[in-house]
Amino acid sequence: MSIIFLEQTEVPTHYTNIVPFLPKPLDPPLHPGTKKPLIPSDLEPIFPKALIAQEMSAEPLVEIPAIVRQAYMLYRPTPLVRAERLEKALGTKAKIYFKNESVSPVGSHKLNTALAQVYYNQQEGIKRIATETGAGQWGTALSFACQMFGLECVIYMVKTSFESKPYRKIMMNLFGGTCHPSPSDLTEFGRKVLAEHPDSTGSLGIAISEAIEDTVTHPNTRYALGSVLNHVLLHQTIIGQEAIKQLAKAGDYPDVIVGCHGGGSNFAGISFPFLIEKLQGKKSVRAIAVEPESCPTLTKGEYRYDAGDTAGMTPLLSMYTLGKEYMPDPIHAGGLRYHGASPIVSQLHHEGVIEARAYNQKEVFEAGVLFAKAEGIVPAPESCHAIKGAIDEALVAKESGEAKTILFCLSGHGHFDMVGYEKYLAGNI
Amino acid sequence: MSIIFLEQTEVPTHYTNIVPFLPKPLDPPLHPGTKKPLIPSDLEPIFPKALIAQEMSAEPLVEIPAIVRQAYMLYRPTPLVRAERLEKALGTKAKIYFKNESVSPVGSHKLNTALAQVYYNQQEGIKRIATETGAGQWGTALSFACQMFGLECVIYMVKTSFESKPYRKIMMNLFGGTCHPSPSDLTEFGRKVLAEHPDSTGSLGIAISEAIEDTVTHPNTRYALGSVLNHVLLHQTIIGQEAIKQLAKAGDYPDVIVGCHGGGSNFAGISFPFLIEKLQGKKSVRAIAVEPESCPTLTKGEYRYDAGDTAGMTPLLSMYTLGKEYMPDPIHAGGLRYHGASPIVSQLHHEGVIEARAYNQKEVFEAGVLFAKAEGIVPAPESCHAIKGAIDEALVAKESGEAKTILFCLSGHGHFDMVGYEKYLAGNI
Repeated sequence: MSIIFLEQTEVPTHYTNIVPFLPKPLDPPLHPGTKKPLIPSDLEPIFPKALIAQEMSAEPLVEIPAIVRQAYMLYRPTPLVRAERLEKALGTKAKIYFKNESVSPVGSHKLNTALAQVYYNQQEGIKRIATETGAGQWGTALSFACQMFGLECVIYMVKTSFESKPYRKIMMNLFGGTCHPSPSDLTEFGRKVLAEHPDSTGSLGIAISEAIEDTVTHPNTRYALGSVLNHVLLHQTIIGQEAIKQLAKAGDYPDVIVGCHGGGSNFAGISFPFLIEKLQGKKSVRAIAVEPESCPTLTKGEYRYDAGDTAGMTPLLSMYTLGKEYMPDPIHAGGLRYHGASPIVSQLHHEGVIEARAYNQKEVFEAGVLFAKAEGIVPAPESCHAIKGAIDEALVAKESGEAKTILFCLSGHGHFDMVGYEKYLAGNI
Repeated sequence: MSIIFLEQTEVPTHYTNIVPFLPKPLDPPLHPGTKKPLIPSDLEPIFPKALIAQEMSAEPLVEIPAIVRQAYMLYRPTPLVRAERLEKALGTKAKIYFKNESVSPVGSHKLNTALAQVYYNQQEGIKRIATETGAGQWGTALSFACQMFGLECVIYMVKTSFESKPYRKIMMNLFGGTCHPSPSDLTEFGRKVLAEHPDSTGSLGIAISEAIEDTVTHPNTRYALGSVLNHVLLHQTIIGQEAIKQLAKAGDYPDVIVGCHGGGSNFAGISFPFLIEKLQGKKSVRAIAVEPESCPTLTKGEYRYDAGDTAGMTPLLSMYTLGKEYMPDPIHAGGLRYHGASPIVSQLHHEGVIEARAYNQKEVFEAGVLFAKAEGIVPAPESCHAIKGAIDEALVAKESGEAKTILFCLSGHGHFDMVGYEKYLAGNI
């Protein structure tokens, strides 16, 4: 038996909030102008009130609205898979499980928060949502969620991904979304970047600035972010909650959890429900956030206040950062090209609750191809980071002869990333 | 609840064979040279003995080898989904279910027979398999199955699809397969076609001829076909068997079953287990095979003996055919561009047990986009034919006020078919 399924009655009823269990209170976000702690009304031009309340919530459980839970049933619970053929290929005694978020209709975990965010916007009468996207997973998810709840969707996609993954744009269009390469000439900030760097390949920081500018200059529009913020991470905790139930069905519990790390939402989704048990002293578990060497936020960034976007329009967040103007190489894992990190993940790392690790692009593709040959699923380049981390843990266990249980999150499939694989197979990465 | 899951213990243990329940004995395949009924040894240069035995079997149940059943557990049982949002979009009282074969790691139902075929080849010491592929679903499936069982795989891909779906080739390469556009200069027949028609966009009939020529001119090589033949359809019956169990969990049974039809394997997979119950007089059910107007084999072809390939190298089969030299338009549903039809499906149609219907490309894409917007899954253009058929049945039920239960097979996802969707969205189809 490779796959552990759950029935739809087991789709979680609540999001689990790690905030009340953190080692220390979270540093407050600061207003970018006054540098004073934000109050909820500061965020109202860009987010609906319900999400602002979740962003600042310290309640341990947040109920999932019935309509959102119903929407999750389009694809959840996602399977938990024992990667037996990968274990065999590695010759390890370690058990490797992965939570397969790639079965989401849009191809990644991003739909978990997109559905919630669009729902809350719709409830407050918002008609249009602007956002950025890196590799396109988030933009696709938000497009579909907007289609589902009847909102207009406009997406600024980092130019390097826009060009290397043309099918992503078509998929956003198919769901009714509009997608622009960023930097674009549609915003003042985009025009400024293009004037200074006409060949700019873009970054998540720039695309976020463009999306926020679009938001505040259009009527009845709000902004949506696919990672980093507390409420986004909160929505993703349904991943780890399901994994706990599925592992319990197999009589198992992980020694190590591995997630890829860009802004933090996938890592949070798979690990936070387990880390809550750890922080409460109930369980012992390691959690490893894996990032690209070319954008080593957690492993080489500074822990300080910084803006979430390049233009400095967002609140200042207390986080690991490479500096808001950091321009990462145009790697294929476009979803991980972010200069900052989620404030919650940052604090957990700073306090030593979790670990972080960086890999280069070649070794993550190598891990992805090994996984694809064993399990048949072609993983997104982002997910390849988690796979590489899990493989390394399995090889350490092989060396030491320990029978460890490793859990990682397959954040998405790589069906729109075949150009990256082609380059890797041709030896050009 | 939208999705009905089964546990992995419920993966079928046997293939169900419709042959002993057919209205009449099947007309025997004829030797292309002597025109006499084939004997098993005639097929030994191209197929392993175990598959030849299955091709000629009239046993009602054929046991699935334990290793193959274990391999199915990489992705089976596949979900059965109630398309509630599609029902709502149509305003119909009909219940629409679809069996989601797109969750297979390679993206379609084709892996069901690929795993079985490669296993039997491996058991008989074969080291290399040659095949053709239309849209690329079959080639991808066979590449992965060969990777799994340690065989070499060479694929002749119909040129129009090779060019419009470049990511498919990369995926085959990723699994270790080699993929050539067909007609190619690698075979005598390919060179002949290119000499006569240098701009040929290819066809399944030509690609089959090339793959068979490759097989008989290389050592330790056998040929594999992704549809049409009895043993291929046999392997696909696990789809319908699971669907019966899943519908029973929901307390339901279909009034109508819809499958897309190229060579017949998807239609057979979803419908044969139900049709066996119908042919035994236990149940009443309609089954509709849906094909493209540009390749209307069942709806406009003749029922007679014809070769399965353009060069006339295969046995002569008693089937509906447009003539082995028929050259269909280069539509996006490359998997349905086949001049013939499975002998079993052909007999069922000729005897009035099933129905057939043809749609044009524009209306099937329209149906696919409606489905994608409702359910989030972008379907393969082949699958869009089944969706269109199911939608039309639901609209008939709406008109008449009947509460029908409709089941269709989502044969695969369209992640590698976005160019077709782009053209449709731009009004160019």
